[in-house]
Amino acid sequence: MRNFDENNITEAVLERVQLAPSARMRDISTALVRHLHAFIREIEPTFEEWEAGIRFLTEVGKLCSDTRQEFILLSDTLGASMLVDAINHRLPKGATETTVLGPFYVENAPVRELGADISPGMAGEPLLVEGTVRAADGGPLPGAIVDVWHSDREGYYDVEHYDAGGEVAMRARFKADADGRFWFWTIVPNFYPIPHDGPVGRMIHAQGRHPYRPAHVHFMIAAPGFQTLVTHVFVEGDKYLDSDVVFGVKDSLVRKLERRSAAPVHGRRIDRDYAVLAYDFALAPAVVKQAVPA
Amino acid sequence: MRNFDENNITEAVLERVQLAPSARMRDISTALVRHLHAFIREIEPTFEEWEAGIRFLTEVGKLCSDTRQEFILLSDTLGASMLVDAINHRLPKGATETTVLGPFYVENAPVRELGADISPGMAGEPLLVEGTVRAADGGPLPGAIVDVWHSDREGYYDVEHYDAGGEVAMRARFKADADGRFWFWTIVPNFYPIPHDGPVGRMIHAQGRHPYRPAHVHFMIAAPGFQTLVTHVFVEGDKYLDSDVVFGVKDSLVRKLERRSAAPVHGRRIDRDYAVLAYDFALAPAVVKQAVPA
Repeated sequence: MRNFDENNITEAVLERVQLAPSARMRDISTALVRHLHAFIREIEPTFEEWEAGIRFLTEVGKLCSDTRQEFILLSDTLGASMLVDAINHRLPKGATETTVLGPFYVENAPVRELGADISPGMAGEPLLVEGTVRAADGGPLPGAIVDVWHSDREGYYDVEHYDAGGEVAMRARFKADADGRFWFWTIVPNFYPIPHDGPVGRMIHAQGRHPYRPAHVHFMIAAPGFQTLVTHVFVEGDKYLDSDVVFGVKDSLVRKLERRSAAPVHGRRIDRDYAVLAYDFALAPAVVKQAVPA
Repeated sequence: MRNFDENNITEAVLERVQLAPSARMRDISTALVRHLHAFIREIEPTFEEWEAGIRFLTEVGKLCSDTRQEFILLSDTLGASMLVDAINHRLPKGATETTVLGPFYVENAPVRELGADISPGMAGEPLLVEGTVRAADGGPLPGAIVDVWHSDREGYYDVEHYDAGGEVAMRARFKADADGRFWFWTIVPNFYPIPHDGPVGRMIHAQGRHPYRPAHVHFMIAAPGFQTLVTHVFVEGDKYLDSDVVFGVKDSLVRKLERRSAAPVHGRRIDRDYAVLAYDFALAPAVVKQAVPA
């Protein structure tokens, strides 16, 4: 095979990948080549533009580190992450809706006792987060693992302060009690821009968009026999709910922050007014997963 | 805008990029989102697969350096570079055909006198490269700049040896004489694998492909008022001519290595048999270029 031009190059590349030993790899390669070539045919990039694209992707890769994943940001801001999420969560009725994982999840967050304060000494309005975990088609799930993380009142996550000596905060894992209930203390999070000092930030800017996400608390909830739930609970009234830069907001995930007066609650004597964010989660039963290609 | 699912997310993202200040940026973003989402809808990746894709692209970026451009390799091996090349070279009849730039081009190669040996002391069969540069629709182009680079007899470029202390070799720039002629001495290049110890190499392997390119000499030829020609001349008979990993071979660019007996030639007394690679290049007139987006 030779003499490739714009009329026959796509077929030539497709033919070349048909010998992939894995059928899944063959299907993915075939789709990748067809859609990549269709994109190029549609925009007809100049060399300078194609080189700019190569430089952009190179810079995205270079910026990735243990605490920053610029390619996830790219996937999130192009709506790709929410699409992958939707495709993988054709959920049964009654199950809590899902949203993106985002780039700030950290595995193996500290395990804390129910009622613990995960942001001790931090500036901000005190927040009690409470809720229950149950099966979408049944009763409570005692012992469910509730992994939570969120931003501070200025919109930063702990990992964004690690380089400056910051420690783990505003993140922890809890074990739901015998009734599937959990509760913990923290501070009210704020809206925030995704990290936008890199190539993805430049892209967003060039697309005429803002880089903000509305205030939310992340949840990853796991129980044996159920699909692990990855979602957020958003704070009602946030000005970015309708323009989340990563397209993650769903009405069913928005909750009002209830304000309560100082009083003893959940074993803690709280001496000033505080907010409460309550959500009851419903997990979908586990499904047999597709095999991952070799 | 909220409540995005697999039915409405694509339209939502498309709507978001319509405020891009640059019309070209808007068009590119629109096409990117549509084709990226179409790819995802077609393959329906699992989370594990999407994460594997993120890791793959991250690794491609991390491997890029001053002497290795893994994203260009990715573009080359998926046929994207040749497609961009074809779209940008709808050439007039008679002009020399183009092919990929490849990842081994280095700007500002040393300027050498016509007849110089650009690979002195290197092991390999002596090679005389000679040719002319003319306008596709006319006469010779005196003073055309002929930039050349190629591999050694084991298939390696000088840049691949820089880390081990290697110096500039098998590359130079020449100025064509008053008749548009150029000639220089070097060694016969060999077929070679593209660098395949990284993620692109793993992709090629998973696609059931080999990583080889047939032996060739790269040319970049520039003259005022003409499109700069980027092409190769391939060596006839190479076993990889029909399966070039980057889809770059065109019949019009293949030439037989002529063998000649020891004799004085072009001012050099050559005391053993040598090969000759001859090619006459024809440049297309310059066209008004599309503007590059801000």
